Amino acid sequence: MKEKVYLIKIGGNVIDNTEKLDQFLNDFSALEGHKILVHGGGKIATRVAKDLGVETQMVNGRRITDAAMRDVVTMVYGGLVNKNIVGQLQSLGTNALGLSGADAGVILAAKRPVKEVDYGFVGDVEKVDGEFIGVLLKQGITPVFAPLSFNPEFGLLNTNADTQTSEIARALAEDYEVHVVFCFEKKGVLMDAFDDESVIPVINLGYYYELRTEGVIFDGMIPKLDNAFEAVKSGVKTVTICEAGDLKMAVENQSAGTIIQL
Amino acid sequence: MKEKVYLIKIGGNVIDNTEKLDQFLNDFSALEGHKILVHGGGKIATRVAKDLGVETQMVNGRRITDAAMRDVVTMVYGGLVNKNIVGQLQSLGTNALGLSGADAGVILAAKRPVKEVDYGFVGDVEKVDGEFIGVLLKQGITPVFAPLSFNPEFGLLNTNADTQTSEIARALAEDYEVHVVFCFEKKGVLMDAFDDESVIPVINLGYYYELRTEGVIFDGMIPKLDNAFEAVKSGVKTVTICEAGDLKMAVENQSAGTIIQL
Repeated sequence: MKEKVYLIKIGGNVIDNTEKLDQFLNDFSALEGHKILVHGGGKIATRVAKDLGVETQMVNGRRITDAAMRDVVTMVYGGLVNKNIVGQLQSLGTNALGLSGADAGVILAAKRPVKEVDYGFVGDVEKVDGEFIGVLLKQGITPVFAPLSFNPEFGLLNTNADTQTSEIARALAEDYEVHVVFCFEKKGVLMDAFDDESVIPVINLGYYYELRTEGVIFDGMIPKLDNAFEAVKSGVKTVTICEAGDLKMAVENQSAGTIIQL
Repeated sequence: MKEKVYLIKIGGNVIDNTEKLDQFLNDFSALEGHKILVHGGGKIATRVAKDLGVETQMVNGRRITDAAMRDVVTMVYGGLVNKNIVGQLQSLGTNALGLSGADAGVILAAKRPVKEVDYGFVGDVEKVDGEFIGVLLKQGITPVFAPLSFNPEFGLLNTNADTQTSEIARALAEDYEVHVVFCFEKKGVLMDAFDDESVIPVINLGYYYELRTEGVIFDGMIPKLDNAFEAVKSGVKTVTICEAGDLKMAVENQSAGTIIQL
C-alpha cells in the first residue's frame, strides 16, 4: 500500500495576513504523516519592489519578471516568505525545509517563450524530482516550496504556485497516495460568484465542462481547475479546493471545499 | 577510512564582486568529492536596507539586527545571495542545495544575551545537525549555508559565517575527514599587514600565542584564528586561510594560504 502524502498550496492572501497564516500553519503542522507545502507570493513582493524602485508591470493579471524583479521575488519568495514559514513550522515542531526549484535541481523549468508578451524570467515546469522529495519525506522532513523554478541556462524563474503544486503532485503520484489541497480566498468553487456559501461540493470532468460552458466557472478559476484536473488525471488520489481556514475539515473528513474528481 | 569533505567559507568581498564570485564558484565546483559552502553576507544587505529605509547600525564592526534588519538579511542572505549561488552551482553541474539554520533545524542557536550591547536577532551557534548534513552528502548534494541560524523561540538569527563554518566542521569531524578553507581578502595570515606577500605558511598553537603577544595578529584576525583553532582542536583534519582565488592551490597541494595546525 502506498503511503499518504498531503500536498497543500497556500496563496498570497494567506501569506499577507499574519493571523490567517498563523492559524493555517498550526493546522498544517497538526496534519499527521508526510506533508508538503507550496506557497505563493503575496503583496509583499510588490511592496518591496516599490521601495527598491523596481516597477511592477502586470499583463493580464500576471507579473512581468525582468532581471530586477527576479531579484525581488528571489529575495521575497525564496528568502523572507519561505524562511519565515520554515521557521514558524520548526517552532511548531514540524521539521520543515525550504526549497526553490534550484535547490537540488528539484524543479526544472523552461523559460516561457516570448510571444505577444515577454513575461521575462518566468518558468513553465518541465521536471520535478519526485525521488529527491521522497528522500526528504523518508527523513521526516516537510518540504516547503517557494514559487521559483530553475533553468540551468537562465537561472531562477518566477513560477505559478498552482502549476508547481500540480507538477509536484504528479511527480509523487506513482510512489505515494497524494492528496492535494489548494487553499484560496473562497470556501470552494462557487455556483454563484456573489454568494460565498454556494460551494459546489464535487466537480467531475463532465460537470466541469458543463459549468464552463454555462459561464459558472470563468476567469482565474479556469487555470486553477485545469491544474486540478491535470493532477487527478495523473493518478493523484484527491484534489480539494477550499479556504485556508477549512484545511482541517477538508483533510479529515472531506467536509469542506470542492472535491475535484474524474 | 573516513570520507573526505571540503568545507569552504567565502566572505562578503567575494560575493560583492561578480567576477571573483564566478571564478570562485568555478573552482569550488571543480573540487571532487563531498563539499560544502558557507557564504557571508556582503554589502548588498546594507544597500537593500538603505533602499528599504532600514537604518544600518554597527557597533564594534558588528551589525545590530533589529526586526526590520532581520527581514533584510533573511531576504538578502537567505534569498538573493543563497539562491543565486545555488543556481550558479547547479548550472556548473554541482548539485547544490541552499540552507538556513531553520531548514531541517540544521543549525540551532541561542539568541545572544543582551549585555552592554543589544545585538538584536543575532545567534550564537549551539548545535549543528551533522547527521542530516551527512544524509545530504550521501545523496551527492552540496549544501550551501547562508549565515542564518535558528532558535525555536526567536526565529531566524543573523550569525557570523566564520563561527558557523567552524561549528559545521566540528559536527562533521567524527564521521568525516574534514578540510576547512576560510577564503578571505588576503592571501593568508600576514606577518606584515602592509605587505600582501608576507604570508605565514603554517601557524601552530604555540606560534599563534607568540604572534598575538607580539601584536602581529590583531583585530579581526583574532576571532578568525580562534575559530580555526577551535576546529582543529575538535578533530578537523586541516584548516587553511587563503584568498578565494587561491582555493584550488590551497586544496590540491596546500601551496597557498596559511595552514592552521595544533
